[in-house]
Amino acid sequence: MGFFSKDIKSLDDLFVHTLRDIYYAEQQIEKALPKMIEKATDPQLKAGFQEHLTQTKGHIARVEKVFEMHGVKAKGVDCPAIDGILKEADEVSGDIADKQVLDAALIASAQAVEHYEMTRYGTLIAWAKQLGRSDCASVLMENLKEEEATDKKLSQLAESKVNLKAAE
Amino acid sequence: MGFFSKDIKSLDDLFVHTLRDIYYAEQQIEKALPKMIEKATDPQLKAGFQEHLTQTKGHIARVEKVFEMHGVKAKGVDCPAIDGILKEADEVSGDIADKQVLDAALIASAQAVEHYEMTRYGTLIAWAKQLGRSDCASVLMENLKEEEATDKKLSQLAESKVNLKAAE
Repeated sequence: MGFFSKDIKSLDDLFVHTLRDIYYAEQQIEKALPKMIEKATDPQLKAGFQEHLTQTKGHIARVEKVFEMHGVKAKGVDCPAIDGILKEADEVSGDIADKQVLDAALIASAQAVEHYEMTRYGTLIAWAKQLGRSDCASVLMENLKEEEATDKKLSQLAESKVNLKAAE
Repeated sequence: MGFFSKDIKSLDDLFVHTLRDIYYAEQQIEKALPKMIEKATDPQLKAGFQEHLTQTKGHIARVEKVFEMHGVKAKGVDCPAIDGILKEADEVSGDIADKQVLDAALIASAQAVEHYEMTRYGTLIAWAKQLGRSDCASVLMENLKEEEATDKKLSQLAESKVNLKAAE
């Protein structure tokens, strides 16, 4: 981003900027997930993170498709938000002595990531529709639905098993 | 948190740590909102941010109440996640030339903040219940409900007016 010029002049510019933001974010999540898989103890949580890594690769491909549909080059921009969320996830997990408690914290961190993605996709979908790009909105909606489903699954796993073990 | 010791040994420790995280986050949001009120052009958005500032002061008071109920001192811990989300909000808004587009971006930034709070309160409520502290969970639920309501209001304002103006 320029420090001396105001580069965003239209809603279309803002849409493209935010698409670049989520593109960067998805790539950082793709890099972070293998470490989370390694740290997780519960086999169901490990498998869930593994499945989400596969989904994340699909999300990146869909965002690239939207760039292409919109006629702009696929590239990321720095996203201090996801950097902060992932930094915090890393710091907290490094500070936990108990493996069961660590699983509970990993779920919380993953849900913070999911919520960031959900808000960005929600915004991008609204803007795409406003810009007359329902075709782009549909593709982004596929990512949003998967993020929402992952968030719900994580809540279920936490409440049915992981939190119980963490409290033992 | 310590770099050489693992300070979080139980789910209770993790609950208290995350309560400190949201306490710090709410305080940073309280500091950031006046700048967002100043930047907003749409009167309804300005009023909405003003109302949320009042609510945020109430959220801080409720978190302090939960600290007291749980018998621990109210204090914050660094929260790189909210710092990153607010830094990004500030950077993006500084890069926008058009006032109507800026309003759309301010809503998106506020919704990223709301989603962060929603995920943390959701987690804290689940952990409080697991720890047998339904009383703490009830107080935190009041904050969660207000954050969810704010998020919905922002979506409605964006879709009914602000995005339309931004696309003109």
